[in-house]
Amino acid sequence: MVLAKVVGSVVSTIKEPRLEGVRFLLLEKIDVKTLKGKKDFVVAMDAVGAGEGELVFYVSGSSSRQTEITAGKPSDAAIIAIVDSFDIQGKTIYSKSGLAGEPKRGPNRGVSK
Amino acid sequence: MVLAKVVGSVVSTIKEPRLEGVRFLLLEKIDVKTLKGKKDFVVAMDAVGAGEGELVFYVSGSSSRQTEITAGKPSDAAIIAIVDSFDIQGKTIYSKSGLAGEPKRGPNRGVSK
Amino acid sequence: MVLAKVVGSVVSTIKEPRLEGVRFLLLEKIDVKTLKGKKDFVVAMDAVGAGEGELVFYVSGSSSRQTEITAGKPSDAAIIAIVDSFDIQGKTIYSKSGLAGEPKRGPNRGVSK
Amino acid sequence: MVLAKVVGSVVSTIKEPRLEGVRFLLLEKIDVKTLKGKKDFVVAMDAVGAGEGELVFYVSGSSSRQTEITAGKPSDAAIIAIVDSFDIQGKTIYSKSGLAGEPKRGPNRGVSK
Amino acid sequence: MVLAKVVGSVVSTIKEPRLEGVRFLLLEKIDVKTLKGKKDFVVAMDAVGAGEGELVFYVSGSSSRQTEITAGKPSDAAIIAIVDSFDIQGKTIYSKSGLAGEPKRGPNRGVSK
Repeated sequence: MVLAKVVGSVVSTIKEPRLEGVRFLLLEKIDVKTLKGKKDFVVAMDAVGAGEGELVFYVSGSSSRQTEITAGKPSDAAIIAIVDSFDIQGKTIYSKSGLAGEPKRGPNRGVSK
Repeated sequence: MVLAKVVGSVVSTIKEPRLEGVRFLLLEKIDVKTLKGKKDFVVAMDAVGAGEGELVFYVSGSSSRQTEITAGKPSDAAIIAIVDSFDIQGKTIYSKSGLAGEPKRGPNRGVSK
Repeated sequence: MVLAKVVGSVVSTIKEPRLEGVRFLLLEKIDVKTLKGKKDFVVAMDAVGAGEGELVFYVSGSSSRQTEITAGKPSDAAIIAIVDSFDIQGKTIYSKSGLAGEPKRGPNRGVSK
Repeated sequence: MVLAKVVGSVVSTIKEPRLEGVRFLLLEKIDVKTLKGKKDFVVAMDAVGAGEGELVFYVSGSSSRQTEITAGKPSDAAIIAIVDSFDIQGKTIYSKSGLAGEPKRGPNRGVSK
Repeated sequence: MVLAKVVGSVVSTIKEPRLEGVRFLLLEKIDVKTLKGKKDFVVAMDAVGAGEGELVFYVSGSSSRQTEITAGKPSDAAIIAIVDSFDIQGKTIYSKSGLAGEPKRGPNRGVSK
């Protein structure tokens, strides 16, 4: 699965009939160390009620049909989880409530001597 | 799914029998911020009646067989929706009727002072 | 599906039993604008009787098992069509009979003033 | 399958119901010659009880559902083995107990003359 | 399928139960014109009894479960053939017995005038 941020949505009227009622969100993959967007975008079906600005992870390929909402649909990307937090080597990089983990730039970042 | 533009079509007489009657379109993936072609092309089966110049999104892999037109066929890419519009961070980047969203280049783009 | 040129073949004696009788061709992906090889190669099963030098498109992944020849075989790439012609924005880029579509380099390409 | 190191974990409360009880680990792919991280990350389901810092290999795509823990779940990456050791051309590059295989830099690396 | 060279092996004790008895080989993809390694590695299940140093091709994705040895296992890469030889544009690039096809560098390579 891949970590990404919900950045927008896509609207379509003329589409494969099985897509009726599905919500299409536009995701931007993120650099997991800096949380910045990687300018790499994907359109995903929303299986969890994600909202713009939220960090999520999505599943690709045939497994993106293994959710209640996407079963039997022509999906190759589905959002399956909204991220609460994640850590790397014991350090919290992201936490939905509060904030953490800008990339380290030096020993005295933001600290007056 | 991936956003792309229909830029052409492919004709084949000698092909796997199951492909009879399928329309093959040539898609160019787009940069979602500028709508420009990325010079990255894919041949996709058309499941929705898309026309040249239209913005669409297509589905890859086994899910590209999950449409009425492509079921049981050797497809790894199928157009499943014609895009009406999409937005990023509340800004309309593309709208089929009218136009929107050239990339911002400065505060006074196109506005005389 | 991806456009590629048949550039060679691969011979194997010791192989998975289900591969008996299958023809393995070496494909080079092409730049669809210039028709030049991209130095990106793949080994594909031949489902249509393609010959060296021909332009084809192949299907990847599980769908490459959806042909009469490859069904039930461990295939992740199968040639499913020999290309007669394809066009981009109304311009014929490739036509098997005759020739078309070198990239435009200037308004008077090959024309004496 | 791809060699990677467990570098962290991901926590999610709002998720597809089938994901209840699954452990999500954050993996960083490694350069197999130097064992260094490649700054290429993936979120994987843990099917073997892997811990942070361990070298593992994971399986992608539909096969990531072919484990006791991930069956029927929307998974596109699952850790299926903790690596004890691996070698390249007869040389042990990695061994979980003890250590081996830093990249060679010269004939007298770390040896006083 | 992709051409690669067997360069090593991977040992694991703690693994998904279905992997018992499977041999994991480390493959390095090759440049098909020069036969040199591309420093791009993958761990594959061995379905044909390949040995280190041999040129093989492997199959990715769900099709890597379509062999007698890998059926039902969480595999995304399986070696399905040991290559005897392959050619590009009529020129033998590789032949297991004897040797062929180093890249051409000049008209008199290795020939005294």
